[in-house]
Amino acid sequence: MTTDAAAPAFDPCDPVAVAQALIRCPSVTPEDSGALGVLEAALTPLGFACHRLRFEQEGTAPVENLYARLGTEGPNFCFAGHTDVVPPGELKGWSIDPFSAEIHNGRLYGRGAVDMKGAIAAFVAASARHLRDHGAPKGSISLLITGDEEGVAINGTKKVLGWLKEKGEKLDACVVGEPTNPKALGDMIKIGRRGSMTAFLTVFGAQGHVAYPHLADNPLPRLARMLAAITAEPLDGGTAHFQPSNLELTTIDVGNPAHNVIPAQGKATLNIRFNDSHTPDTLLAWLRERFDAVGGAYELEHFVSGDSFLTPPGPLTELVAEAAQAVTGRRPEYSTTGGTSDARFIKDFCPVVEFGLVGQTMHKVDENTTLDDLTRLTDIYGAVLGGVFDRIG
Amino acid sequence: MTTDAAAPAFDPCDPVAVAQALIRCPSVTPEDSGALGVLEAALTPLGFACHRLRFEQEGTAPVENLYARLGTEGPNFCFAGHTDVVPPGELKGWSIDPFSAEIHNGRLYGRGAVDMKGAIAAFVAASARHLRDHGAPKGSISLLITGDEEGVAINGTKKVLGWLKEKGEKLDACVVGEPTNPKALGDMIKIGRRGSMTAFLTVFGAQGHVAYPHLADNPLPRLARMLAAITAEPLDGGTAHFQPSNLELTTIDVGNPAHNVIPAQGKATLNIRFNDSHTPDTLLAWLRERFDAVGGAYELEHFVSGDSFLTPPGPLTELVAEAAQAVTGRRPEYSTTGGTSDARFIKDFCPVVEFGLVGQTMHKVDENTTLDDLTRLTDIYGAVLGGVFDRIG
Repeated sequence: MTTDAAAPAFDPCDPVAVAQALIRCPSVTPEDSGALGVLEAALTPLGFACHRLRFEQEGTAPVENLYARLGTEGPNFCFAGHTDVVPPGELKGWSIDPFSAEIHNGRLYGRGAVDMKGAIAAFVAASARHLRDHGAPKGSISLLITGDEEGVAINGTKKVLGWLKEKGEKLDACVVGEPTNPKALGDMIKIGRRGSMTAFLTVFGAQGHVAYPHLADNPLPRLARMLAAITAEPLDGGTAHFQPSNLELTTIDVGNPAHNVIPAQGKATLNIRFNDSHTPDTLLAWLRERFDAVGGAYELEHFVSGDSFLTPPGPLTELVAEAAQAVTGRRPEYSTTGGTSDARFIKDFCPVVEFGLVGQTMHKVDENTTLDDLTRLTDIYGAVLGGVFDRIG
Repeated sequence: MTTDAAAPAFDPCDPVAVAQALIRCPSVTPEDSGALGVLEAALTPLGFACHRLRFEQEGTAPVENLYARLGTEGPNFCFAGHTDVVPPGELKGWSIDPFSAEIHNGRLYGRGAVDMKGAIAAFVAASARHLRDHGAPKGSISLLITGDEEGVAINGTKKVLGWLKEKGEKLDACVVGEPTNPKALGDMIKIGRRGSMTAFLTVFGAQGHVAYPHLADNPLPRLARMLAAITAEPLDGGTAHFQPSNLELTTIDVGNPAHNVIPAQGKATLNIRFNDSHTPDTLLAWLRERFDAVGGAYELEHFVSGDSFLTPPGPLTELVAEAAQAVTGRRPEYSTTGGTSDARFIKDFCPVVEFGLVGQTMHKVDENTTLDDLTRLTDIYGAVLGGVFDRIG
């Protein structure tokens, strides 16, 4: 008897086994450490066509990505996620080796257990079970897996999507496996995210001696008034699916060591997490209106790390909510709270929602998921696969 | 024929010759470079008892000072000043060597020409002429000359005054030779100075992620409101002899490089130049009232580099004003404007006013005084010596 060298050492229908194989690859961004190879080894025998995509850009580390598709017909339903993980941090804080994937008292421990190797294992197991129990899907199942989500996100999902577009490859609906549930599986589906804009304010004056202020022009009182003005009132009151937009001052810096010198300029940085009642342009206008009311010379620069987006309640959101309710007995809340994810890129291609494990231990020591959650998440994704080809496309 | 080795190479009655000898010593703080030796050589033959006083303190450079007294009887009238100068800066900005003391078109050029070796030369020449023309004074003439006025002012006038106090040496009135005239000799006598207090504000919050502001407490909006509050209104409207107190923010620093992190604290520094309607305690209370109105945790530290002081119009101010008017034909304004000087230390010992050359070129390239101003300032100081022993003590 001979064995196929490509065959995995685990059953792809078993999410715990797949998750353990993934966790045992120490794939701290930007290292792959074999994680995508584990997926290829599981998916290829199931009939997935696997494309390894390595992207690089000056000033960043090269990153491995994977696009795997089963079937050639539409609609093309996509599971998206990342195999890269944040560093384990202080090892002495962990009860077990963060990359040993040990099971204790019904829990699987390790960096990435919930964010989000556990969910990727559930993608694989749900797909394998669907093929086992129902045969070929009435469309295509694809996996878009990046190794650059926890890092700068430059050589990851964004570039994979560009590659797909170039190949004429269409996505019709997508579920991202981020750990969306605050406390228990079934709590929350993310149907959108706030946008994020960072702005840099520089206020100009004229340097001089504190004893002769009439010969100088101190920019700092204006800077203080500008910053007080933009933090005095909320940007908005929230919208149907979003909490109010929020502005945070992150730093103010002048760097003048001389106590008798009036400085020539002062700088501040602010970050706005904004809902669908705003765009970067309306935010900049809102800021400028308040800065102009204070007056004086200033400069405002900015960058947008993600627009706000929303997949309004509809066929995809309902499908995932029903699947979660069928398995957990709980109706998940639709939410747009929290930080950014790669869904911010995918939303330009197809409707996208996020649903995964319970996030409580993500990015912390002793990151873990219950085995029961892993099994139930596999069942939920399986229920999504069961309905998605009739409901979308 | 033999020459006395101690005899100076100049006529002490000639302020131009004395000023040139002083300027040729490159006495940039804390270096003496022979400047006080020039004075000793001029004063000793006139009968002054000279005391060279070298003071030092950990963390500062040792500094040479001179106390010279002619006579042992009271009242003791004191001329005070400094031989140290600020650095010449970029030499290529100068038309001539800053330490060559060249005369061109009726002007004496060089670092210290107006601030304040020219005035010290006028002290010497006025004293020498008084002795020549009127004999021994009806009291004592003293010179208190430091080499640490442009520097940290730790090993200078303050310590000389301490030494005098210890010796039981009394001063009855003092003229400081700072360049008080903004445009022309006779413009302005300084009869006091504002105080100076520097305060350090730290506002505390709790660090967190900008996407989860409810888990953090951003201190920067409070810092902005506090700084806006203390710069929104003047501290006071000025007093009989003082302009309004003035507050300047000199720096604001947070130093947070992460655009997605809410910082734990923010710091600001401010300097207040205050008049005689305030003390450091009333200023701190004024600040705390405004900070407390904003609320939250903060810390306020401070140091006072000089209290405000005033020598109210009286015999000394009148004597100097009359002398200036007699020589220049102009009645000087009494003023308390501008920065600090060593008069802030002397005011604790006797009435003190400041009157010297025209300050326009002080601390600048091509610092210079007209020879005419040097002569007229000598005449003014001479007139003060002529009247002071009848008017004070």
